[in-house]
Amino acid sequence: MTESTQRLTDIIAAARGGQPVDLLVRDVRLVNVLSGEIHPANIAVKDGVVIGFEEYEAGMVVEAGGRFCVPGLIDGHIHIESSLLTPPRFAELAARHGTAAVICDPHEIANVMGGAGIEYMLAASEGLPLSVFVMMPSCVPATCMESAGAALTDADVLDFLSRYPQRILGLAEMMNYPGVLSGHDGALAKLAAAGDRVIDGHAPLLTGRDLNAYLLAGPASDHETTTVAEAREKLRKGMHLFIREGSQEHNMLELIGVLNDFNSQQTSFVSDDRLVNDLLGRGHVDDILRRAMAAGLPPLRVVQMATINSARYFRLQRRGAVAPGYRADFVLLDDLETFAIADCYLRGRRVADSDFTSAAPIPASAVRVAKLTADVLRVPVEAGHLRVIGLIPGQIITEHLLYEARVEDGSAVADPGRDLAKLAVFERHRATGRVGLGFVSGLGLARGALAGTVAHDSHNLI
Amino acid sequence: MTESTQRLTDIIAAARGGQPVDLLVRDVRLVNVLSGEIHPANIAVKDGVVIGFEEYEAGMVVEAGGRFCVPGLIDGHIHIESSLLTPPRFAELAARHGTAAVICDPHEIANVMGGAGIEYMLAASEGLPLSVFVMMPSCVPATCMESAGAALTDADVLDFLSRYPQRILGLAEMMNYPGVLSGHDGALAKLAAAGDRVIDGHAPLLTGRDLNAYLLAGPASDHETTTVAEAREKLRKGMHLFIREGSQEHNMLELIGVLNDFNSQQTSFVSDDRLVNDLLGRGHVDDILRRAMAAGLPPLRVVQMATINSARYFRLQRRGAVAPGYRADFVLLDDLETFAIADCYLRGRRVADSDFTSAAPIPASAVRVAKLTADVLRVPVEAGHLRVIGLIPGQIITEHLLYEARVEDGSAVADPGRDLAKLAVFERHRATGRVGLGFVSGLGLARGALAGTVAHDSHNLI
Repeated sequence: MTESTQRLTDIIAAARGGQPVDLLVRDVRLVNVLSGEIHPANIAVKDGVVIGFEEYEAGMVVEAGGRFCVPGLIDGHIHIESSLLTPPRFAELAARHGTAAVICDPHEIANVMGGAGIEYMLAASEGLPLSVFVMMPSCVPATCMESAGAALTDADVLDFLSRYPQRILGLAEMMNYPGVLSGHDGALAKLAAAGDRVIDGHAPLLTGRDLNAYLLAGPASDHETTTVAEAREKLRKGMHLFIREGSQEHNMLELIGVLNDFNSQQTSFVSDDRLVNDLLGRGHVDDILRRAMAAGLPPLRVVQMATINSARYFRLQRRGAVAPGYRADFVLLDDLETFAIADCYLRGRRVADSDFTSAAPIPASAVRVAKLTADVLRVPVEAGHLRVIGLIPGQIITEHLLYEARVEDGSAVADPGRDLAKLAVFERHRATGRVGLGFVSGLGLARGALAGTVAHDSHNLI
Repeated sequence: MTESTQRLTDIIAAARGGQPVDLLVRDVRLVNVLSGEIHPANIAVKDGVVIGFEEYEAGMVVEAGGRFCVPGLIDGHIHIESSLLTPPRFAELAARHGTAAVICDPHEIANVMGGAGIEYMLAASEGLPLSVFVMMPSCVPATCMESAGAALTDADVLDFLSRYPQRILGLAEMMNYPGVLSGHDGALAKLAAAGDRVIDGHAPLLTGRDLNAYLLAGPASDHETTTVAEAREKLRKGMHLFIREGSQEHNMLELIGVLNDFNSQQTSFVSDDRLVNDLLGRGHVDDILRRAMAAGLPPLRVVQMATINSARYFRLQRRGAVAPGYRADFVLLDDLETFAIADCYLRGRRVADSDFTSAAPIPASAVRVAKLTADVLRVPVEAGHLRVIGLIPGQIITEHLLYEARVEDGSAVADPGRDLAKLAVFERHRATGRVGLGFVSGLGLARGALAGTVAHDSHNLI
C-alpha cells in the first residue's frame, strides 16, 4: 500500500465513522453555494478538511445554535503591499473578517525590489492559515517611461511559474494593454510565457475590436470596469468580471446592474487595494458583501460571488465551498443579511486560536536617495506660464492647467494663496540623484511639505 | 520573436482588422452562455477560432438572417461503443445534430480489448472536427467476478494519462463504489493514480456517510442519480450532477426538479448510451435540449447545461461558448425552443463540408469462442425447482424467481409455454470453453434463439 492509498484508506475510514473526527460544528444553517440553498447541517472536520454534514463522534464539538455558516471568503485581486501591512499581519486581520484566501499581485513590491520582493511575499505568507496565492507581476516597470527599482522579463515569469507551481497561479493584471495591442515584444513574450495559466487583465474602457485583440492575446478577467455597458460587453466576450470595491475605487453599486439569473458565475468581488484603516474599521470582503446585500442582491448570489466563483476562475480545486473534501474554511454568522460574524475557522481551527507568525525576515530598507541640496529644487524661469497638474477630488485622473508663474530670485516657487504647490520626485532605487520637478494644484497645502515612497507604480520618493 | 509571440502578433492584427478573417456569419441572435443574454452579433472566425462580434472583412460571408446561434453542444458522458458505430461515424452523425465535443469512456471496448481498445478509440477519433475527449476506464474488469477480455491497473492509468495529456482528461466513472468503500487496494490505487485530474463517479443511491467517503476518495460527478432527493444530497456535497437522458435511461424529467436560480452551473446533460437508431432518428444532445425546453426550462439555462457547464467541469479552456478566443463551434437555429437546426459549424467550417474520415484501421475481430457441442448446453437435473432470472419491463434490475423444472432426458429445458428460456454465456475472449447456464423468464421467446456479444460489462457471447 502506497502513501497515497494509505491516505485514502484513512479518510474513507473517518468518513464512514470508523474513527472520531477532529471537530464537529453542530446545527448550522449552511449557505450552500453548490446546491444553491440554505439548509441545516453539521460540519464535521478532520485534518483540516470537511468530512460531511452528518452526526459524527468528534474530539471537539461546537454548538452553533442554528447560526448561518458560509464558506471562507476569497479576494480575487488585491495588492497586499497597499494595505501597508506585511503579509502575516494582513492575513491575520483579513482572517478575522472571514477571508480564507487572497489572490495577490505583488506588483508594488516587485517594482521596488524585483524578484526579491516577490520572494519575500511568498516566504512571509507561506503556510499561513489564510492562503495567499500569487499572480506573477506582468508590468515591472509599469511602462518604459518609469524609473522603477527593477525590470522583470518573460524569463523571470517562466522561472517563478516553474519554481512555485502551487502558489503562483498565473500572470497578474496585464495593464500594459497599449503594449499588447501594438504588439510590444516584451509584453507578448510574458503572455506567451504564462502559457495555459490564468492571465488577469486590466483594460479600462477597452472596447470593440481592440478588446477582441486583447482577449485573444490571453487576459481573461478585468477589474477596471466602471459602467454597466462596459461590463456587458466584457461579459459577452467571455471576461470574468471582477467587481471592485476597494479603499479608493467603488464600482459595486454600478456594476451589479449587469447581473441576471444566468451570468453571476462569471463575476466575483475583489478589493484591489484595501488600506489598513479600512481593514480595521469596515473590514475586507465581508464589507463588500454587506453593501451588496444592502443594495438588494440575494445573499446566496452574493456569497457565491465572494467564494466559489473566484475559486473556479482561478482553478482552485476544493476551495470556495463547504462540502466533503473541501478545505474547512468557514464563517459562522449571527445574521446573514448584515454579515454579522460570530466566529471564523480556517483549516478547521478557530482563527482566534491560529498562529499567524512568520519567520521570514523583513527586507532591509530599499530607499537609496542621493545626497540632496536645496539647489536641486530650483525651477529657473524668468516669467510666464507653468504647466500644472490639477487634482480632481476623489478621482484618479487629473487636469492639465496653465498658471502664471510666481517668480522669486529667478525661480518659480509655490504659491499657497493660489493653492499651487511644488512637486518633486527623487529617484530612490539607485541613488542616481535624478529629480523630477513640477507643480500641482488642489492639495490645499498652506505650509510645510509632505513626502512618501508609496507612489504608484515605481514608488520613487515624492 | 518566437513562434508563440508571432502567433499572438498575427491574431492581434486580425482582431484589429488588419487582415481579413476567414468567415463572417452576419446577423445572428447569439444565445450567450457567458453574459446570460440573447443579443445580436456577427460571428467572425479566423483559423478556427472566434475573433469577435463586430463587422470584419472576411473571405466568406454567411447571412444568418437573425437566426439563433448557440455554442456547439457537449456530451459530458457517453460510451461511443454503445452507439454501435465507430468513432468517425458516430462523430459525423452527432455533429449533424449540433454536437461539438464528447467526453467518452471507452469502458466497453477496454473490457474486451484492454489498452489496445483505448488506443483504437483515440486513434480513430484523432483530429476529427468533433472533439472526442477520453476518460480513462477505471473498472476493467467491472468486478472481480467477471470474465473480461482484459485487466487494467493503476500502472495503465498512469501510463495513458502521461502519454495523452491533451486527450485523456481524467479517470472515468468509478463504478466499483463498494470496492472504494471497503478500501480495495486496486480501486484506491487507480484513484490515487488520477491525482488532481477529474475523476467521474458512478454511485446510484449512495447516501450519508458512505457518500462522504466516496467523495473524499476523489470522484466528483454522478450520472446514476434518479430522484430529486438523491440529486439534492449530491449537489449539496459538491458533486457535479450529470442529468442522464439516453436510449435506455430517462432521468431528465425527474431531475430538473432539483434546479433553482443558484445551482444549475453544477449540472450538465449527458446521454451515457445512445443507440445508432436514436442518433439517426431523434438526435443526440439536441434531443435532450428539446425535451428540457418542452418541460419548461428556460432556453438559456438549458443551453448552458449542454455547453459551458460541461466544459468547466472538465476544465476545457475556451470551449463551450461563442466568444473571442473560443473554438468556433456553433449551431444556427431556425427556432430556439424546438431547437430546429439550420446549420452546424465546427472549427469555423460547416459540418456538411467537413471531413470525418479516419485512417485508423478497425481492429480485427476479438471474438474467440471454443468449439462448442450441444452437450455443453445440458443442465442435468432429476426434478425440482430452478432459480430463474425474472425480467421487469423497462428496468435494469431483475427478480429472483423459482420455477418447477421441465425435465426431458434428465435435463432441464426451456418451456416457452411458461415464457421460460434457457440462457447461456460463452466466454469469448480467450476461447476457454467456459460456459455459464441459467434460465430467464419474461423474454417472450416462443421459438428459436438470440445471440450477441454486446453484453455489459464483459461482453461475452450470450
